[in-house]
Amino acid sequence: MLRIAVLGAGRIANIHAANVAANPDVRLSVIADPWREGVDKLASKLGCAVAYDCAEAIARDDVDALVIGTPTDTHIDLMLRAVKLGKPVLCEKPIDLDFAKAARAVEDIERLNGKVMLGFNRRFDPDTLQLRKAIARGDIGEVRQVVITSRDPGLAPVEYLTHSGGIFRDMTIHDFDTARTLLGEEPVEVFAMASRLVEPALAEIDDYDSVMVLLRTASGKQCHINCCREAVYGYDQRLEVFGAKGMILNDNHRPSTVRTYSATQTEVRDPLENFFLERYADSYRIELNQFIEAVRANAPLPTTARDGLRALHLANCAIESIKTGRAVKVEI
Amino acid sequence: MLRIAVLGAGRIANIHAANVAANPDVRLSVIADPWREGVDKLASKLGCAVAYDCAEAIARDDVDALVIGTPTDTHIDLMLRAVKLGKPVLCEKPIDLDFAKAARAVEDIERLNGKVMLGFNRRFDPDTLQLRKAIARGDIGEVRQVVITSRDPGLAPVEYLTHSGGIFRDMTIHDFDTARTLLGEEPVEVFAMASRLVEPALAEIDDYDSVMVLLRTASGKQCHINCCREAVYGYDQRLEVFGAKGMILNDNHRPSTVRTYSATQTEVRDPLENFFLERYADSYRIELNQFIEAVRANAPLPTTARDGLRALHLANCAIESIKTGRAVKVEI
Amino acid sequence: MLRIAVLGAGRIANIHAANVAANPDVRLSVIADPWREGVDKLASKLGCAVAYDCAEAIARDDVDALVIGTPTDTHIDLMLRAVKLGKPVLCEKPIDLDFAKAARAVEDIERLNGKVMLGFNRRFDPDTLQLRKAIARGDIGEVRQVVITSRDPGLAPVEYLTHSGGIFRDMTIHDFDTARTLLGEEPVEVFAMASRLVEPALAEIDDYDSVMVLLRTASGKQCHINCCREAVYGYDQRLEVFGAKGMILNDNHRPSTVRTYSATQTEVRDPLENFFLERYADSYRIELNQFIEAVRANAPLPTTARDGLRALHLANCAIESIKTGRAVKVEI
Amino acid sequence: MLRIAVLGAGRIANIHAANVAANPDVRLSVIADPWREGVDKLASKLGCAVAYDCAEAIARDDVDALVIGTPTDTHIDLMLRAVKLGKPVLCEKPIDLDFAKAARAVEDIERLNGKVMLGFNRRFDPDTLQLRKAIARGDIGEVRQVVITSRDPGLAPVEYLTHSGGIFRDMTIHDFDTARTLLGEEPVEVFAMASRLVEPALAEIDDYDSVMVLLRTASGKQCHINCCREAVYGYDQRLEVFGAKGMILNDNHRPSTVRTYSATQTEVRDPLENFFLERYADSYRIELNQFIEAVRANAPLPTTARDGLRALHLANCAIESIKTGRAVKVEI
Repeated sequence: MLRIAVLGAGRIANIHAANVAANPDVRLSVIADPWREGVDKLASKLGCAVAYDCAEAIARDDVDALVIGTPTDTHIDLMLRAVKLGKPVLCEKPIDLDFAKAARAVEDIERLNGKVMLGFNRRFDPDTLQLRKAIARGDIGEVRQVVITSRDPGLAPVEYLTHSGGIFRDMTIHDFDTARTLLGEEPVEVFAMASRLVEPALAEIDDYDSVMVLLRTASGKQCHINCCREAVYGYDQRLEVFGAKGMILNDNHRPSTVRTYSATQTEVRDPLENFFLERYADSYRIELNQFIEAVRANAPLPTTARDGLRALHLANCAIESIKTGRAVKVEI
Repeated sequence: MLRIAVLGAGRIANIHAANVAANPDVRLSVIADPWREGVDKLASKLGCAVAYDCAEAIARDDVDALVIGTPTDTHIDLMLRAVKLGKPVLCEKPIDLDFAKAARAVEDIERLNGKVMLGFNRRFDPDTLQLRKAIARGDIGEVRQVVITSRDPGLAPVEYLTHSGGIFRDMTIHDFDTARTLLGEEPVEVFAMASRLVEPALAEIDDYDSVMVLLRTASGKQCHINCCREAVYGYDQRLEVFGAKGMILNDNHRPSTVRTYSATQTEVRDPLENFFLERYADSYRIELNQFIEAVRANAPLPTTARDGLRALHLANCAIESIKTGRAVKVEI
Repeated sequence: MLRIAVLGAGRIANIHAANVAANPDVRLSVIADPWREGVDKLASKLGCAVAYDCAEAIARDDVDALVIGTPTDTHIDLMLRAVKLGKPVLCEKPIDLDFAKAARAVEDIERLNGKVMLGFNRRFDPDTLQLRKAIARGDIGEVRQVVITSRDPGLAPVEYLTHSGGIFRDMTIHDFDTARTLLGEEPVEVFAMASRLVEPALAEIDDYDSVMVLLRTASGKQCHINCCREAVYGYDQRLEVFGAKGMILNDNHRPSTVRTYSATQTEVRDPLENFFLERYADSYRIELNQFIEAVRANAPLPTTARDGLRALHLANCAIESIKTGRAVKVEI
Repeated sequence: MLRIAVLGAGRIANIHAANVAANPDVRLSVIADPWREGVDKLASKLGCAVAYDCAEAIARDDVDALVIGTPTDTHIDLMLRAVKLGKPVLCEKPIDLDFAKAARAVEDIERLNGKVMLGFNRRFDPDTLQLRKAIARGDIGEVRQVVITSRDPGLAPVEYLTHSGGIFRDMTIHDFDTARTLLGEEPVEVFAMASRLVEPALAEIDDYDSVMVLLRTASGKQCHINCCREAVYGYDQRLEVFGAKGMILNDNHRPSTVRTYSATQTEVRDPLENFFLERYADSYRIELNQFIEAVRANAPLPTTARDGLRALHLANCAIESIKTGRAVKVEI
């Protein structure tokens, strides 16, 4: 039975730890975090060992694989420690906010034949998986245009935003990854527009809250992404893939199917599921399952560190596009 | 070119007259009604002759066919006059509120080989026609259960209700006809429940405002009809046909496809189209077209006077069921 | 911490046992069933004690409350044993297929102040809870008509059906309970029609596969229920509540929100979730939670044994209605 | 009573002529076109006079206003003739494919106080009107992002495309106009990507079949437009407006509300209405009505020649953006 350590005791680590603990096919050996209060509480709830040092947890004999949910600037160090011990890793994105550091890390991982899966959780959303299966089956023919809508329910606190790397590297990066998987070809050109329509004060940290992006692949396939840091009706996550033989779309999730009719309105439904923890609860579970299955089967991981690097590069191209007013060539 | 007289100058006659006038394949010769003010206004708007005597209009040389939209108690007399002159008739339902009189009229019509089409307009609704085509094609296999929802937007004035013949003969009669066409077999048993949930004072005229009916055919197919004289959200007209290989449904019509999202609600749509004049505008047009086509081709009419008699009989069975608390056998 | 025994090791007991085991606020002490192979497997998977004798499990010191998922004919005996020991029970419906026996059991339970919650799982479906909340809040005004659609995906095996008590006592009984809760008043009259449209051979066991029911309350509120043992498109579970100020509906659940467009079709969605284990997974969890909460708070249970008796009585009235062709007065 | 001449006898002129003829408040005096066969047939069907010379028709005493549906390269000459005679004009877009000529024409019209309404028919679509009303009422707060989907059902013949002015000036021009009205501010920046995914041979006429555009206004509002010359599922026309307090969307039109369920699919609906003649039939009627009302009330026309110029300029900016790979500043 695969024995797993979860590194981190914050929001995302809590999800991963609970999923590991609930999975009957693996064992949660230890949870590690220097934040003693948080890690003690989480480990006691889930009934596993505690470590206050992540490196120590990685090295433990009763740890076969790692799930990393620590702050971004620790990712590379922890990942590489595990890789050097030959232990597979599921790491939250991004690798690092600095592209050069991230690129070096990916090269190191690849040279060491490290097994690192990057946590692009949305890839494992059942709706998205079904879209990709339909595309792969040829249901809609050759893909022509992809439209990705991705709006958060509300602006994150300024402290968070200050260290987030900016909207493209923090938020749109998920959509860049989705674009890559739905287009089925690498984007070769990126154009972006960005505005401050929610919070003008974001100018102080050189960030934006509302962006629109266009991507183009070598064969001419096109993708549009729109993001906003605030949507009053909830977490808006929609995909549309338009192809030569048809179109396939998903829709947002709502807590119920109930519809209400009154004298002035019909078909009234609930607001959307509030945010990613609810909307992508299944995705996190499936992501972990696929990691576990791949590790046990010694099969290729469904996402790689290089996927993280590519998404980060697209984010950087978008930022450059805003600065130059030009479409930026993707050279990687 | 077929020359048509419209008898009546009220609400429904207005619709028929306008449709006749707008149809490029026929000519509106004359509109007739003893109500001089109404008929003068209508005829002048549509640019045709006027008659204050319906019998006279029927007999005119420049009239080949009749559309009857006069009060119910004149239907039999006018129909038979036309039949005796060999002129085809499209007559609003019902034939008569008195079953014995209606039955005699149908026998007379049939003996004289009269061409009388009864105005069950909903049969010609494009959605319903599509349902029937799908059933006939076998898309959903053998029909098992039919559910008909039929609610008016608001209670009609008491004067109207007093002379309506009661909810079953005035309102549910349409649904009895729909049930017959969707079941594809004649109902052999009727059970009904009736309440006064909108207007208790209907007890004074021995009428009801909310009814539920069950029908059964000889082979065991089942149908449920629910009606209410008042639905605050508009004219509620839905059909569901469930069969061995699938199900087919239609939905209500709305003036637009617009959907609104706010902080508390999503997918909010308009109220329904208000009432039958809007909801079934297309049906009246198509009904007239099919009448004209059948007359010109000397083909059987899509509905007959006997259809009216059968629907009226089902209404009477429902009334008897309420009085006896029993399922009533349909013997006709 | 509340310590629970699960009686039974079949399909439904598996669900209950897993939910008990996963609930952090209670402990699964023991699973009991004379079927050794089944109970051993289940207990070992969930890591709890085993008993081959249900009565013994009920009596154990480390058992504070019972969840009964054994065959119907054992329910009364096991329930009463627990009641006599003052232990609260969550028991799968029905109490018993024999009304007289069930009635005596309910009297015994009530005389002994027994705490017995009957497993009408659909009451705890989040969609249904939301409907009931909206009705209670007055969102749609006074209820007038309720329409319940309830179709199974496929006919159960003949062996099952032979001992099921018939479609009304086995399947429609859930809908009778739903009708009671949505109408907000007790039905006083029942009328039913029944056919064999899926499997004519059901005549041999005097059972039916397709039924339609009407219910009426003292104030005239109406309810229609339609059931069929087979719907090729999946488990069809819909509710509609129509009131003086509006209407509220729920819809079926589907595994995804994906919609596909092709040259011949648009808005194509998945088939429905297959059957009750998937469709009502949340309901079973919430049902158990509400049982646990009520037990811990020493509060009234959300459903009672008497609820089971009432639903069974409505089923019996429906059967009598079919035999007599009459609406049957509900006297209980 | 306003007397109108329709210039042209082609597809779009047929629609306008039929709408003029059916409008009870105006008179169709004459239809003019050098194409004798076409104009004779149309005039005889609608019962009005014929002219084979458009200039002659404009000058007629019994003509108070003009509807121009002739080939694009005649628009300016005919418009200006009417303007010089003080007669109001409803003219199909575009003014001219050459921006400089169009700009001079607009200046001439404005100097002469000419009344010219440009036929941006989609502005008068009931769904779109409702969207604009909701935005104006503040239902969704300040607009942030607009998404316009606009796909034709199939590629037009090469002869048509060769003289169309290219996808941006022929097809996307409608969406540029829609963007202007929904954003509520003028775009100041345009970026475009274009591909040949339907018909590579379009390279020969330097045209494209699949494009994506981004627009930005001075205050930072954003708009995305996607177009494709071929969508197998029909004419795809959707709008989404996302604002600070909500979102409002419309959906495509379908010929019916019917939904079909089978063993493998649910919620299956018809393909979309095929093309603009069906989809925008109401828009053409309302457009004409608003023209007539404004002329009679001597009120400002709802669209102007300058609107046509602005949309054409945005199309030209998009073309320049493709050539340069840059976002193009809108200077007009």
